[in-house]
Amino acid sequence: MLSRFMSGPHPAKRRLVAMSSHLGNGPQNGGPTGPAGQTRAKVLTIDSMNPLVKKVEYAVRGPIVARATELEKELEKGVPKPFKQVIKANIGDAHAMGQKPITFLRQVISLCVNPDLLDNESFPADARERARRILQGCKGGSLGSYSDSVGVEVIRKDIAAYIERRDGFPSDPDNIFLSTGASDAIKNCLHLLVAGSGKTRTGIMIPIPQYPLYSAAASQLDAHQVNYYLDEDNNWALDIAELERSVKEAREHCTPRVLCVINPGNPTGQVLSKENVQEIIKFAAREHLFLMADEVYQDNIYADGCAFHSFKKTLMELGPDYAGLELASFHSTSKGYMGECGFRGGYMEVINMDPQVKLQLKKLVSTKLCPPVSGQATMDCVVNPPQPGEPSYESFIKEKTAVLTSLAERAKLVAETFNSIEGVTCNTVQGAMYAFPRIHLPQRAVDKAKSLGQSPDGFYALQLLEQAGICVVPGSGFGQRDGTYHFRTTILPQPDKLKIFMDAFTAFHNKFLKEYAD
Amino acid sequence: MLSRFMSGPHPAKRRLVAMSSHLGNGPQNGGPTGPAGQTRAKVLTIDSMNPLVKKVEYAVRGPIVARATELEKELEKGVPKPFKQVIKANIGDAHAMGQKPITFLRQVISLCVNPDLLDNESFPADARERARRILQGCKGGSLGSYSDSVGVEVIRKDIAAYIERRDGFPSDPDNIFLSTGASDAIKNCLHLLVAGSGKTRTGIMIPIPQYPLYSAAASQLDAHQVNYYLDEDNNWALDIAELERSVKEAREHCTPRVLCVINPGNPTGQVLSKENVQEIIKFAAREHLFLMADEVYQDNIYADGCAFHSFKKTLMELGPDYAGLELASFHSTSKGYMGECGFRGGYMEVINMDPQVKLQLKKLVSTKLCPPVSGQATMDCVVNPPQPGEPSYESFIKEKTAVLTSLAERAKLVAETFNSIEGVTCNTVQGAMYAFPRIHLPQRAVDKAKSLGQSPDGFYALQLLEQAGICVVPGSGFGQRDGTYHFRTTILPQPDKLKIFMDAFTAFHNKFLKEYAD
Repeated sequence: MLSRFMSGPHPAKRRLVAMSSHLGNGPQNGGPTGPAGQTRAKVLTIDSMNPLVKKVEYAVRGPIVARATELEKELEKGVPKPFKQVIKANIGDAHAMGQKPITFLRQVISLCVNPDLLDNESFPADARERARRILQGCKGGSLGSYSDSVGVEVIRKDIAAYIERRDGFPSDPDNIFLSTGASDAIKNCLHLLVAGSGKTRTGIMIPIPQYPLYSAAASQLDAHQVNYYLDEDNNWALDIAELERSVKEAREHCTPRVLCVINPGNPTGQVLSKENVQEIIKFAAREHLFLMADEVYQDNIYADGCAFHSFKKTLMELGPDYAGLELASFHSTSKGYMGECGFRGGYMEVINMDPQVKLQLKKLVSTKLCPPVSGQATMDCVVNPPQPGEPSYESFIKEKTAVLTSLAERAKLVAETFNSIEGVTCNTVQGAMYAFPRIHLPQRAVDKAKSLGQSPDGFYALQLLEQAGICVVPGSGFGQRDGTYHFRTTILPQPDKLKIFMDAFTAFHNKFLKEYAD
Repeated sequence: MLSRFMSGPHPAKRRLVAMSSHLGNGPQNGGPTGPAGQTRAKVLTIDSMNPLVKKVEYAVRGPIVARATELEKELEKGVPKPFKQVIKANIGDAHAMGQKPITFLRQVISLCVNPDLLDNESFPADARERARRILQGCKGGSLGSYSDSVGVEVIRKDIAAYIERRDGFPSDPDNIFLSTGASDAIKNCLHLLVAGSGKTRTGIMIPIPQYPLYSAAASQLDAHQVNYYLDEDNNWALDIAELERSVKEAREHCTPRVLCVINPGNPTGQVLSKENVQEIIKFAAREHLFLMADEVYQDNIYADGCAFHSFKKTLMELGPDYAGLELASFHSTSKGYMGECGFRGGYMEVINMDPQVKLQLKKLVSTKLCPPVSGQATMDCVVNPPQPGEPSYESFIKEKTAVLTSLAERAKLVAETFNSIEGVTCNTVQGAMYAFPRIHLPQRAVDKAKSLGQSPDGFYALQLLEQAGICVVPGSGFGQRDGTYHFRTTILPQPDKLKIFMDAFTAFHNKFLKEYAD
């Protein structure tokens, strides 16, 4: 038990520090240079702060990204660089990379924000009707009031209706929890699941490579991170034998209670087949695991022959043997064709959650009052888009299709280009917004990195940034098999920028290989 | 150490439960009614869930509020009730109670959401200029992109400039962290501060009565809640002798590291004098405490002779002896004259935070990507309102003044009415949005409550809801001295509704006193 708190100073030592800093700053030690002067010892230091927070790692916004921002500022100031612009391919942020918002969505939200416009006929009738309906669901008819902690009721109903249409099975609005982006809901769900100590402490099964929110939450909650490896040689498929190995080994030192699956995959871009989803459900049932399905990329499917199979639908289709499985599924406004990250909209649907636990979840979310109502309204537009015959339908479909078609083209271009370069291999980007190519680094580059105290992929990514202005995230931020090196790049730069990106990358990589040739 | 996890089942018992449920559902136990049927044992139950979440209490959205929502639905269905409407005075939600949004603010946000309107001259030029400026600060010029995790840079600069104007002392934008409402920032700050075990475990000093976010966060973080009592006989003033008693007693069993102060007070409505703020700062310095100043009601000052004295300004004025004190101050879009709760805008300013800890804080907030950008834009409008000479200035000032004047009148009306009723006493509502009257309950009412297994104030509040349709929060949800009973009500019902409220309350209370007369 104690060992879980040992990453900071030893408790006894910490107590001494606390005592001495108190003594040195106590009331008995007054005077102008005494208790509170500029030189007073800090209450909160890197040694005295929460050790669990220190353990958190989150590479998507780590030091390489910070350096990219610095470089942007240097470029603005006219500092000469070997590139004209920094291309930030580190994060799935479509609008930041120039994607235009969906017109209908922004019309509805602006009408909700500013109801003085509701009678303005320059807005299409369906947008005005949607906004009126959302506002009727808001207390006082205002987006500025708190909603219920679980979200605006009418929006929860719209989400449930969307899920029913998608899956062909009933969805209960009482199972829908709106959230501040999907991250918030994922953290809340994990929060509920972590308990016990020593061997009974909760283990959270996480894919490797993973989206680092999961490992960050595990660190913060002091849970055991239980890794299962995706199969790079098989387009990052999820192999049940590997799940079995992972859970068996984990049971030696913790109690695995939850299986996290990201489909379509982040950072890996694979789309699970229906059979694979079925097998995973059966595995979770056999091993008595709560299933968390991160399905925020459900609209981002590109490769021929791939389709999105929701865990909810697949579970229902498996019939009564599996109908009782506990499942939480997550969705978001930030991805898909809309890319509305800034509004922080998201939801989770919980299936078969114990009613008493659900009450506890409602209490937990109530301490944060409610998710942003503008984000909830954005979510409503996503699940309740214009229908055939409505005035906005055609332009909406045109915009949506254009975004998804272009993303599919870029997904193909990126993987193909990577595979055309010596020392780089990349699986098909079947879905989501990322490629996770493997870079085969010469030993001399690995040695150089180690001599600098950097990870080899971190060293590579930093060089790529400094020399080519391209910001990606090293594979070590997501996890990878020992001795393999990768990076994650989004496929989001607009087509013209993506060509600059791929050309600059190719030139950099060839130069790098030459420089560090064995 | 173990004792902190003992509120759930005993660890050994829990282990047995976990083992047996695994055995009972393991792979060896197949068949249609076996591992995954509808009757399968849940992974996540009230016994197996996170015990820290179970300990959380949050009365502002507790069972009485849930019952109020049920009553509203019953009224809608035509179920006869002794009242025509439910008045929800449980939460500081101005728009829900009919307050209109500030026009300028909503114009700016709608322009940010829908930039197609930026050239529309029916919007005032200053609103269009503000929106353009905010959008220039957003990546890709879109509110839909992620901002930096700490917030949009130009908005952080505007906040720092606002603090400088307010206090007359410099403020560094690098010390500003935008947040999802103030609650989010408060939780993050407490998160950093909690460490240690046993007697070195962090103690969080909290006023009683308090806003229950603080106790909820302490429970969730498994920190010690250290109570200090506000002085009801002295208009809820903060007495330094009581702080000294509290910290001294707490040192027997934990390490108090942070002092939380709410000014103006929630639920108590007091406004601290400058001398009081000075004394608190000196106390924090003497006792080596990190100071957290919840100043979200800084614009809500009503009583003659009262003024808001920020902790930052007062600290700076105290000179070099105190200039090094660690302070975090919190503000929000949800309160003040704007009442924009739903946008979830807020920020904290940290002063004298250790640079390494600040980096950890930046990392921690980055795992949630960013606060809602629409909420950030709302915050910008609050700290950067129309200036004299700008087209919106006069209408803005008129709207702002009307709200604050009306709130001041309501603050007075509420306290005066309570004090005119037998068995009710209420301190002056100097600021914030609440009254916290004391109800002197007859012994027979206390006995009746106990016979029902309810707290006396909880029983009273439930009767008030069932009989008069008035929803308030029992004092026990905020903490109160043993043997005293209170409730919190907002002063937010619009004047016409407030009269109905006070009349209905008076009638209920008199009837209640008669019914339970000793």
